[in-house]
Amino acid sequence: MPLPGLYFEDFTVGRVFELGPKTTTPEEIIEFAREFDPQPMHLSEAAGKASILGGLSASGWHTSAMFMRMMIDSYLLDAHSEGAPGIDTMEWKKPVLAGDTLTGSSTVTAARPMRSRPHIGIVTFEHRLENQRGETVMRSVNSVMFRLRPQENAA
Amino acid sequence: MPLPGLYFEDFTVGRVFELGPKTTTPEEIIEFAREFDPQPMHLSEAAGKASILGGLSASGWHTSAMFMRMMIDSYLLDAHSEGAPGIDTMEWKKPVLAGDTLTGSSTVTAARPMRSRPHIGIVTFEHRLENQRGETVMRSVNSVMFRLRPQENAA
Repeated sequence: MPLPGLYFEDFTVGRVFELGPKTTTPEEIIEFAREFDPQPMHLSEAAGKASILGGLSASGWHTSAMFMRMMIDSYLLDAHSEGAPGIDTMEWKKPVLAGDTLTGSSTVTAARPMRSRPHIGIVTFEHRLENQRGETVMRSVNSVMFRLRPQENAA
Repeated sequence: MPLPGLYFEDFTVGRVFELGPKTTTPEEIIEFAREFDPQPMHLSEAAGKASILGGLSASGWHTSAMFMRMMIDSYLLDAHSEGAPGIDTMEWKKPVLAGDTLTGSSTVTAARPMRSRPHIGIVTFEHRLENQRGETVMRSVNSVMFRLRPQENAA
């Protein structure tokens, strides 16, 4: 269950949101790859084993999309978000293989109100995903816009 | 049809690879969002219109995945690629709405052989996608590893 209705003020520097677990399946790796990234190592176990990745492995874009879903399920779905302008950094550090179980975290590293839109604040996160062997498979930094909490007693 | 079998040497600085066209549909925007980014503005026209995005709009991760597929179809599928370590920058600059037609380009901005792996070179690209109104909707910078062309007459 996602945390209910977070506002900008809830994203205090240092706060950590847990992500996952999410276990990948060969079927979903292949389905994503057929549509978006049909390279051999993402389409069959044999081709994956023959590559430097060592087995059927998720497209980096698939890992990123699974990471988005983990954020939704942890804290974003009911948050008062105004979206993200993009990604500052996305590192795919190790292969994500079929059957791997991913867990991770989003840590707030900065938070400031916008000057141009005083009811919105920008929160910067450092995100990490690791596999069941404790290896970091993905690291990312990005910023998300959230609404400030309404002031019920504002003059 | 993708260009056949490109090696590192084919990615000369300044070379431009055309991307697209790709027209988005409401069905695929909703299907992607249901699995990876189930926020209201990605799930219905009504919620999209009520948001700052102005209509049913693709998740930024969906735009990124469509962009991957455009690279595959333009030059990556048969290239002698060793994969990408990640993304330096990904900017989602304008909403991608249902029915938008995306075109774009990948421009080589740098290319250098790796010191640690002399048969591999690293190519840096600047990528852009625009909609049918000529607005830039996505900009990205990343690097991809490619094999050097085998030297048939090597001593």
